[in-house]
Amino acid sequence: MSKYWSDAIRQLVPYVPGEQPKEQQIVKLNTNENPYPPSPKVMQALQSFDLERLRLYPDPDAGRLKQALADHHGVSRDRVFVGNGSDEVLAHSFMAFFRQPQPLLMPDISYSFYDVYCNLYGIEHRRIPLRDDFSIALEDYDQGNGGIIFANPNAPTGRALDLDQIERLLKRNTESLVLVDEAYVDFGAESAVSLTGRYDNLLVVQTFSKSRSLAGLRIGFAIGHPALIEGLERVKNSFNSYPLDMLAISAGVAAIEDDAYFRDTTARIVATRDWTTGELEALGFRVVPSRTNFLFASHRYLEAAELMGYLRANGLLVRHFSRPLIDNHLRISIGTDAEMQQLVRTLETHPDIVRL
Amino acid sequence: MSKYWSDAIRQLVPYVPGEQPKEQQIVKLNTNENPYPPSPKVMQALQSFDLERLRLYPDPDAGRLKQALADHHGVSRDRVFVGNGSDEVLAHSFMAFFRQPQPLLMPDISYSFYDVYCNLYGIEHRRIPLRDDFSIALEDYDQGNGGIIFANPNAPTGRALDLDQIERLLKRNTESLVLVDEAYVDFGAESAVSLTGRYDNLLVVQTFSKSRSLAGLRIGFAIGHPALIEGLERVKNSFNSYPLDMLAISAGVAAIEDDAYFRDTTARIVATRDWTTGELEALGFRVVPSRTNFLFASHRYLEAAELMGYLRANGLLVRHFSRPLIDNHLRISIGTDAEMQQLVRTLETHPDIVRL
Repeated sequence: MSKYWSDAIRQLVPYVPGEQPKEQQIVKLNTNENPYPPSPKVMQALQSFDLERLRLYPDPDAGRLKQALADHHGVSRDRVFVGNGSDEVLAHSFMAFFRQPQPLLMPDISYSFYDVYCNLYGIEHRRIPLRDDFSIALEDYDQGNGGIIFANPNAPTGRALDLDQIERLLKRNTESLVLVDEAYVDFGAESAVSLTGRYDNLLVVQTFSKSRSLAGLRIGFAIGHPALIEGLERVKNSFNSYPLDMLAISAGVAAIEDDAYFRDTTARIVATRDWTTGELEALGFRVVPSRTNFLFASHRYLEAAELMGYLRANGLLVRHFSRPLIDNHLRISIGTDAEMQQLVRTLETHPDIVRL
Repeated sequence: MSKYWSDAIRQLVPYVPGEQPKEQQIVKLNTNENPYPPSPKVMQALQSFDLERLRLYPDPDAGRLKQALADHHGVSRDRVFVGNGSDEVLAHSFMAFFRQPQPLLMPDISYSFYDVYCNLYGIEHRRIPLRDDFSIALEDYDQGNGGIIFANPNAPTGRALDLDQIERLLKRNTESLVLVDEAYVDFGAESAVSLTGRYDNLLVVQTFSKSRSLAGLRIGFAIGHPALIEGLERVKNSFNSYPLDMLAISAGVAAIEDDAYFRDTTARIVATRDWTTGELEALGFRVVPSRTNFLFASHRYLEAAELMGYLRANGLLVRHFSRPLIDNHLRISIGTDAEMQQLVRTLETHPDIVRL
């Protein structure tokens, strides 16, 4: 605390990301990273990059990356915005669209950074409860609002909405922006990108951190009507002209172009996820149906916090949120088959767990 | 424009960075990039980086880079903040410190992004005129304020303040933050980092984009009292947990560790700058005394805009600002000796320029 701070800074409660342990031998199932390395094409792009060029500024518009994303998603380039991870894209979206006279609506359980952005930019918001099965009840969002945001699939629950549910919401909610955060969409859910051509108040945000195995390079993007993209560019160009460095732009283009690798690795994660779900259920867990690269699970009679400690003591890191409604759940990222087998074997050695 | 924008976004006038031409053969003297490549140690660090690790998130605190900077500047690590280029560090500083009941003071001619940040965050500000010789008159800043910011050396003028002038300001101005933007300090000016231990309201911001030849990787940092750094961390962690990617962190550490290369290349640029100053003066230019890697110059009887067009037509790109007081000046980045010789030769071929 310092007398030189702006008043609002005193009230900020920052987001706390999952732990990045220094020990190399720990199995990290706590931050939803991809267990597979980036595409070999990404490696080639980085290895062949002329490093002397780093003395120059990057293209402030990251045009090559925008074009690659536009081609991949079948939209025009003026419908694409890119940023330093989807967190930066989300932050700019909150500033560009959600500072409105009416409150922003969001699920009461979702990505906890949304509250943090509201706090940062002084945005009033209202949390809409999930159903008891952790699904998002979009019909509850039919009320005056200055915007709607939700993650699909939702985090940390892993549940997905169908596209027709989202389209029904868009037909009803035409006066404010609807932001669909699709960080996890590539693991089996339906993307709303296909709706952006028909609904000029729909913004879809995605990331390279999960399905593209590039969390370490910080690339996120948004797709929507050109007027929405222009609003984001205004904020971006009033904040930082060059948020994406040259290596990230190069690697991002290569990642998008290697669609075969993307399909293969995401399919493997989906298969591992479904196997792990069955195993956890056999060990007494209730597992929320997941369309993501993680599972959200609670044990029938063991406490989540205790289980997390047990796993940690045995070299496995998972995530636990000390928040009402979900504080007896663990969020378990999907690793390789070997890592998930190790998780299952470790749980089997717990004195109070028996295979059903 | 879109009805879904927040009201304030309609008023934003974004910063416009210097052009990044697509033609490779043009001599770029328009964005103050370093003509020398990054240190060979940077190349080695990037070439030996295990690219498979990019699937993981970076250290959100960029601890290795903070430690390298702390060691280099002889301060403790809790006095160092890092960000995605000094533009991001400046943006977070405006939000953390300058949203105050009283106006922010800044020179009327300085880095034009300062106005943009004020606009973005709704910060009232007052521009203090430079002296006729383009020097900053710090005695004019003795008035009620919610903060003071200036670049030292200043941009685009290139003039530097002595450290004792800055210290006298700090002795008088104890109730608000003083931010010294030292983007160009390594080309011959005195850094105020040495004062940060004694003045808890002093924040010094620097960048790797100029003297470290890493504009393409986006690394900036701030040094100041731990309570100021904590304020910046709060904003950063409410905006984006991981603004620096893994490759930038690695390259940044290597750049700081290669002090010999840094000293050699900055000294070469200083020597080239001083040679170029003499040549331009011989060709009829008035050149503002520069402690940076650029020259700010006006010709005695030729118009800056016309000269810029002439140079552009001959394959040399320099920067011209269409702003009152400085619209007859050119800002010319210092390139290699060969590039500056080409500049001088090209000017000599101008029909209205004669060597004095």
